[in-house]
Amino acid sequence: VTRTLISELSAHVGEQVSIRGWVQVVRDQKRMQFLVIRDESGQAQVVLFKEESPNELNETISALAAESAVTVSGMVVADERVKLGGLEVQLSGLTVDSPAEPELPIAADSALDKRIDWRYLDLRRPDRRLIFEVQSTVEHSMREFWRKEGFIEIHTPKLMGSASESGAELFKVEYFERIAYLAQSPQFYKQMAMAAGFGKVFEIGPVFRANPSFTSRHDTEFTSVDVELSWIDSHEDVMTFEESWLAYVLGVVKEQHGEQIEATFGVEVVAPTLPFPRVTLEQAKEWLREAGYDSVPGPTHDLDPPSERALSTIVKERSGHEFTFVTDYPTTVRPFYHMRHPEDLSLTRSFDLLWRGIELTTGAQREHRYEQLLAQAADKGVETESIQYYLDFFRFGAPPHGGFGFGLTRLLMQLLGQENVREVTFLYRGPNRLEP
Amino acid sequence: VTRTLISELSAHVGEQVSIRGWVQVVRDQKRMQFLVIRDESGQAQVVLFKEESPNELNETISALAAESAVTVSGMVVADERVKLGGLEVQLSGLTVDSPAEPELPIAADSALDKRIDWRYLDLRRPDRRLIFEVQSTVEHSMREFWRKEGFIEIHTPKLMGSASESGAELFKVEYFERIAYLAQSPQFYKQMAMAAGFGKVFEIGPVFRANPSFTSRHDTEFTSVDVELSWIDSHEDVMTFEESWLAYVLGVVKEQHGEQIEATFGVEVVAPTLPFPRVTLEQAKEWLREAGYDSVPGPTHDLDPPSERALSTIVKERSGHEFTFVTDYPTTVRPFYHMRHPEDLSLTRSFDLLWRGIELTTGAQREHRYEQLLAQAADKGVETESIQYYLDFFRFGAPPHGGFGFGLTRLLMQLLGQENVREVTFLYRGPNRLEP
Repeated sequence: VTRTLISELSAHVGEQVSIRGWVQVVRDQKRMQFLVIRDESGQAQVVLFKEESPNELNETISALAAESAVTVSGMVVADERVKLGGLEVQLSGLTVDSPAEPELPIAADSALDKRIDWRYLDLRRPDRRLIFEVQSTVEHSMREFWRKEGFIEIHTPKLMGSASESGAELFKVEYFERIAYLAQSPQFYKQMAMAAGFGKVFEIGPVFRANPSFTSRHDTEFTSVDVELSWIDSHEDVMTFEESWLAYVLGVVKEQHGEQIEATFGVEVVAPTLPFPRVTLEQAKEWLREAGYDSVPGPTHDLDPPSERALSTIVKERSGHEFTFVTDYPTTVRPFYHMRHPEDLSLTRSFDLLWRGIELTTGAQREHRYEQLLAQAADKGVETESIQYYLDFFRFGAPPHGGFGFGLTRLLMQLLGQENVREVTFLYRGPNRLEP
Repeated sequence: VTRTLISELSAHVGEQVSIRGWVQVVRDQKRMQFLVIRDESGQAQVVLFKEESPNELNETISALAAESAVTVSGMVVADERVKLGGLEVQLSGLTVDSPAEPELPIAADSALDKRIDWRYLDLRRPDRRLIFEVQSTVEHSMREFWRKEGFIEIHTPKLMGSASESGAELFKVEYFERIAYLAQSPQFYKQMAMAAGFGKVFEIGPVFRANPSFTSRHDTEFTSVDVELSWIDSHEDVMTFEESWLAYVLGVVKEQHGEQIEATFGVEVVAPTLPFPRVTLEQAKEWLREAGYDSVPGPTHDLDPPSERALSTIVKERSGHEFTFVTDYPTTVRPFYHMRHPEDLSLTRSFDLLWRGIELTTGAQREHRYEQLLAQAADKGVETESIQYYLDFFRFGAPPHGGFGFGLTRLLMQLLGQENVREVTFLYRGPNRLEP
């Protein structure tokens, strides 16, 4: 069967075609039968005159359950009265490739948890599908940019022999005669790629967090986007890369899906201008105080979600920009391997990127000098025995390097105005959710 | 510091530049000092006249351990006598970004296991690096092709609530109050994407096998490449897609790395012609017998590795082609969800793709009709209780579909003539190997 996509029907008026998809609606009238067929490109009306067709076919159509998978053959006819593209297909043949059971287990207004039980039916909604089309475009344009810049793609192991930086939230795996751990981040291994002289690397892959939270922002498995660059002079080089890269990606998304995203989710895709605004954490807190924000976190503390939202609003008012790099976090809120400012050892060469009120990514220059790294681990009270393999990466010549990482779903939620990570994840995983 | 890549030095003759990389060699002569610096683009000779430079600098250079990470500033001078590109850099400044300890733990001829202990040093060898440059090109060209064809990229969960098709070789994860399993394949979930109406999908991601083998071909975690297509008429459509896609990928690899692969590994990259030869399993066994091959597997058996090698040789002699699709495997050697031939229910609509003597991929049309799927599961004695979530994908209209999958390392090994999966994996994982 040569399949014609519904979006291409207008090029086949007067021709016999086969369309293949799902039964959206069956309308059985006295003299005619109507079907609406949905495929990945759109919807089409199919019509059959009862008098001109065999009884058996009429009965098959009457009995068709919505969501059955079918192949419809017929003539494409232009008819201005038809709402679906001014076209209809006059049915001459029908094959039920796979019937649906008569009662669908979910509807569009079913509770989210129920929709996830039947995720594949939920994903048949065109707005859900759009999320994953946008995800595909986001990832592809990220990779195009990396590729042009000479990045190497790496796949780091998800099975690890020891806990990484933090022992918390780790999943344990029965690994032959011992225990393995699931990677919470490719952090240490992307740094290994720097020590290996790979120059610039990226990875898009799963990470795992044994976090018992049920919030709309937490999950136990998600897709992490990670970047690491060598031979930088400071975290400024990392930010310069990240902003150009994100501006490229959002530009492509706007071009390819901007109208559809606005029509579907009511969110405008804005291709950001360069450079993104930058503000030190200290200055950001000053701005918050000046704006009358009354619960500014103390000097050794990170911003909390409400102050991130407030700061984004302030920056938006000042510069019109949706993005803000907040820089120079104190060592108290950063891991031991973030490089410290030579002129102020209490501050790190690190940043967060805020977007539309939330923290999108975290980045930093890393400490690449073995002795300093050991000293910083000791200073932060980090137990180094289990991470000696990581410290070893810095014993035989490591380049200055830095990078950033984030969850792909976080970007999609902001981009598409979605409130729940479950909506932008193909199959969500949480403490009570391992199915389907 | 504005860094100049070594490969770009010839455009900077007569200019002051900074190159950044690793110390390959230090040669301390009476009146001069030579360094060879290596970066990701090549190697360069650096020279210093002792009489014209401070003692302190001479001493720093004398004390430099090989593999230290350094930044060298100097004037680029053309000199035909210099083997490395007819250029040298006359040193004016040197920064040791990170010194190497004096004694390297591995050498080029160290045992493989030892080299993996110090994988980052092993990966500094340009031939090792080339493997991952080629991997990046392979993946990028795969994705370019998919993108042009309208595929959606999916990320299926690696944490699963129940064993998939086979309970063997599964890793168990302590998952809050219960047990989760690590995915051995995205098979069931890429089929879910078909039931969701995604049309055509791909995934490149990790899979896990609790296989206790230590062979050169086995590992416990590897990167799987998976493709699934809807609205096919038979497995022939899957093969037609796969051969065009692979021919594109190998064409790009040949163009971008062909010469370097041949120079480094002595292997020619051949961009295959279309179509690839096809032979039924039954016919393939007949060819083997005709060729005098004396241990042809019986009628209900798959080919074993020696007969795959023999068959590849026969096809190469017959048609000059490196690839062979072997089709129509009996149900005895295929999972229950492979569709059966309507005209011979003992055969499946399935195939293997052989390349240079080994099985590269396995593919099939899947059974999308719920009742048939149940019947086939019963026929094969499959316990369906734990996979009801999978069977449910077929209850509300599933399109005819099929696909294929394979380990990325398998392709790289054949492409680059590598004998051990450990060489083409960024960080190998095996029964005794969870570090680094």
